[in-house]
Parts: sequence; C-alpha cells; structure tokens
Amino acid sequence: MNLTHIEHLGIAVKSLDTAIPYYENVLGLKCYAIEEVADQKVKTAFFKIGQTKIELLEPTSPESAVAKFIEKKGEGIHHLAFAVGDGVANALAEVEAKGVQLIDKAPRKGAEGLNIAFLHPKTTCSVLTELCEHPQE
Amino acid sequence: MNLTHIEHLGIAVKSLDTAIPYYENVLGLKCYAIEEVADQKVKTAFFKIGQTKIELLEPTSPESAVAKFIEKKGEGIHHLAFAVGDGVANALAEVEAKGVQLIDKAPRKGAEGLNIAFLHPKTTCSVLTELCEHPQE
Repeated sequence: MNLTHIEHLGIAVKSLDTAIPYYENVLGLKCYAIEEVADQKVKTAFFKIGQTKIELLEPTSPESAVAKFIEKKGEGIHHLAFAVGDGVANALAEVEAKGVQLIDKAPRKGAEGLNIAFLHPKTTCSVLTELCEHPQE
Repeated sequence: MNLTHIEHLGIAVKSLDTAIPYYENVLGLKCYAIEEVADQKVKTAFFKIGQTKIELLEPTSPESAVAKFIEKKGEGIHHLAFAVGDGVANALAEVEAKGVQLIDKAPRKGAEGLNIAFLHPKTTCSVLTELCEHPQE
C-alpha cells in the first residue's frame, strides 16, 4: 500500500451558506468549487490547504448518509480520504485481504472526477476512510 | 490569517495497541513516536503522511476530554490542526476579533514541543480546531 498524502477531509455541515463564510472569512481559505454529487445526495464546497482539500458536505435529502451522520453525531469531520499512489483497485484488493470490509468493491467516480472507494469504519478503527486517485495517475 | 497546511489530525481511539497495527499493517504508515501528554490525559502515537501527521489519542483517564468524546460520539476523528505561518498568538487575536471563542487564550506547549491553541467547536462549524507552529518558525 502506498498512501502519498491526505487527499481531502470530508466535513459534514448542515448549511454551506453558514459554513463557507467561516472557512473563507475566519480561516482565510478560498472556496474554489461547489459541486452537487447527486448519487451521494450532497452538495459539496471545496477549499485547498497545502496538499489537502477540505470538502464541506451539505446533505440535499434526509436520506443522505451525511444527513444521517449529522443526526447521529452532529456536524463535524465525516471522512478521511487518502491519495493512493498505486491504484485504488490494487489497494482495495490489498486491504480486503487484510480483513478490511469494503463499502465499494471496485473504484467508482467521486467528486472532481476522482476514482474513489470507501472502506467500512467498522474495520478502520471507526474512521470512515476513502481511497482516491486521479484517473490520469 | 495564513494557514499553510494541515499539521495533524487527532483521532480518538480506545486502545493504541489495537489501532497502531491497523495504521501500520493495513495502511502501511509507520508509527515514529509514542508520547504521553500528561496534562491532556492522553497517550499519543504519531504517523506521517505527506505534509500531515496522524496523532492517535488514547485516553489515560476517564476524566480525559478524549475519553468523554469517545463516550459521547464513539471513536473517530477528534480534532483538526492547522499549521499557522504567522504565529499562533497573532492568529488567536485575529480569529477572536472575528467572533471565534478561544479555548486557549494564549499559545501553550503541545505534543512534540509545538506552540498550540484550541478554538471552541461551537464557533468553528463544530470542528474542534487547533492552531500550531513550530517554536523556531
């Protein structure tokens, strides 16, 4: 497994309209994109800091996993996404062989066109974990 | 405010003995230090990935804030620490003027000898946020 850096942090918020001004005006980061990810039922806002992106996630439906997260645990950090240097498919095979339960059995398209897959927090010390790669890598 | 990168992510775990093998053997990261931070009542284990450190936090007392976090929300990502380019004291003054509630009114020493201060999650979109600088910076 070759994890190169933290690609992004997903942070669950009730409202992008409330959260974006905090990240911009207080922390001094710049929102460079807003994107709706229909199949995840979220609207996302992206910021860059060093090697890492912060991805704010506002649920667009009460059925969204992010809405359920907020209901159960409150707003806050929702998932941790690692950039994988040697391909998400290879990494999935490797972690599955080591006992990790896969949410996505194969890479799929996520926000910003990345190839992504999620690992189940039951088998990742309770941190919802995502593996990502840029398609050209 | 000049945030340069994510200095570390604090992750609350019940047991370092359980969590360290996951980070080492499954994710392929290397634990390079274990340190007890007595005033926070935690034992910490450090890993580096790209610009960022992962700091696992095991409570050493039921009175630890990390123990209370685990009791309330379960194990998981506990706080987000930004590296500040122009000094923690300056940054604290700036965010306080913008309405952020400070947990630490002035920088104090944290793990690894960093100057650190925490901001209250009530005023940081529910993310317990830490500002850090290396003393020599």
